[in-house]
Amino acid sequence: MSSTLGTLYLVPTPLDFGTAGPAPDLQDVLPLGVIRRAAALDFWIAENAKTARAFLKRVDAVVPLASPLQSLQIVELPRAQKGAAKGTPQASAPDLSALLKPALEGHDLGLVSEAGLPAVADPGAALVQAAHAQRVPVVTLPGASSLLLALAASGLNGQSFAFVGYLPVETAARGARIRELEALSRRSAQTQLMIETPYRNEALLGALVAHLQANTRVSISCGLTLASGFTRTDTVAAWKAKPSALPDDVPVVFSLLAG
Amino acid sequence: MSSTLGTLYLVPTPLDFGTAGPAPDLQDVLPLGVIRRAAALDFWIAENAKTARAFLKRVDAVVPLASPLQSLQIVELPRAQKGAAKGTPQASAPDLSALLKPALEGHDLGLVSEAGLPAVADPGAALVQAAHAQRVPVVTLPGASSLLLALAASGLNGQSFAFVGYLPVETAARGARIRELEALSRRSAQTQLMIETPYRNEALLGALVAHLQANTRVSISCGLTLASGFTRTDTVAAWKAKPSALPDDVPVVFSLLAG
Repeated sequence: MSSTLGTLYLVPTPLDFGTAGPAPDLQDVLPLGVIRRAAALDFWIAENAKTARAFLKRVDAVVPLASPLQSLQIVELPRAQKGAAKGTPQASAPDLSALLKPALEGHDLGLVSEAGLPAVADPGAALVQAAHAQRVPVVTLPGASSLLLALAASGLNGQSFAFVGYLPVETAARGARIRELEALSRRSAQTQLMIETPYRNEALLGALVAHLQANTRVSISCGLTLASGFTRTDTVAAWKAKPSALPDDVPVVFSLLAG
Repeated sequence: MSSTLGTLYLVPTPLDFGTAGPAPDLQDVLPLGVIRRAAALDFWIAENAKTARAFLKRVDAVVPLASPLQSLQIVELPRAQKGAAKGTPQASAPDLSALLKPALEGHDLGLVSEAGLPAVADPGAALVQAAHAQRVPVVTLPGASSLLLALAASGLNGQSFAFVGYLPVETAARGARIRELEALSRRSAQTQLMIETPYRNEALLGALVAHLQANTRVSISCGLTLASGFTRTDTVAAWKAKPSALPDDVPVVFSLLAG
């Protein structure tokens, strides 16, 4: 690899994006080393430029940015990528190598998503793929993924698990998919994780409880890293006996393990 | 839930355990908020008590421990759990509720694994399951999992992925499992992640390259968060044309996505 190439840093961000109430202090949720690295970068690629600027303002309050926020280059990932169906392969992605120009010219480059680890449960992987194709070194800085915080807190199997993204919205297709995930989970004792648009949180929990076997365990983690956050894991029978209300304004991670 | 219960905190640790060379500064890899919370806890459950003490010494150097290290209660997870086969369900786990006694008496309790997020790719989930059964609140503090840092850096599909633990060691069974994982990956464009005992890193990479199709992509991430760390993602054809030597003394995360 040429020493003149910059590095593509995958920069984790807090999980509180878009949630109500006071955001945690940045140092409560991100390592100082990550904040320092972010403060030093002049070139950025973002899932959403507005969110990226809000993040960099929080960085600046802890470690002053090397260059003024207004002078940073923040380029958004192409919209077509943002709308890509979850779970589709990246092979047909448009050519993103133009976005890597700063790295090819020797500048370090940061990638950020809306929340958490970039290129996980978001469209950033196509850019990382392009970086590997150009032999641009890729480094993920240490940070949290809501999926794995939820998995840890669930008490479900953490030695075999899968993230399957979003479930179908249509009722019959959703029910069929839930039963399919339960069968997959039973076959290899594999925890199945999924996410939902916040206003459909209640509907997804209802569908899980309606379609799964009584002894299958379902876990929900709401508002991870927020003071109001909580995790509940119970059998479907217990969820039926004692339902929980779910917030419709914070991200929830759902998981199941067949009993 | 009773207000007299303590909380079970799942405390992330650095990923550099057992690796040679200088360890990163704790503040480079863990949020200050996590270090502060760890410094305040008097009761711990650990995968390995010696490693937990070494971690707490690093904590103490940043935020002085509330109580002297010698006076902390550090209890190891039962050995039987440590040797549990990867991917087995937790349902047959022994009763771990006795370990939760401090939380039932109102004290906050920390759980740590050898490296990274507890209860992910380690035997801690059984304890978390016991906590939920006793209605002890469970909170995962924000930290990195090597699996997801590797997934992000791989550029493989981050919208559908599975962690399958260790592969069989026996040659024929290993080859069959590799072909099975490739078929699973192809069916749903799902990235498959796995780990190996470090001294078998080279052998696993060799087996992947030998058994997978030429256009399947294989990614390896070595020494995550270390200065010497790197990620390489290439097609099997490219791995064959230009092999990489793998270190035998640092953890490596392997992943594949069928082409």
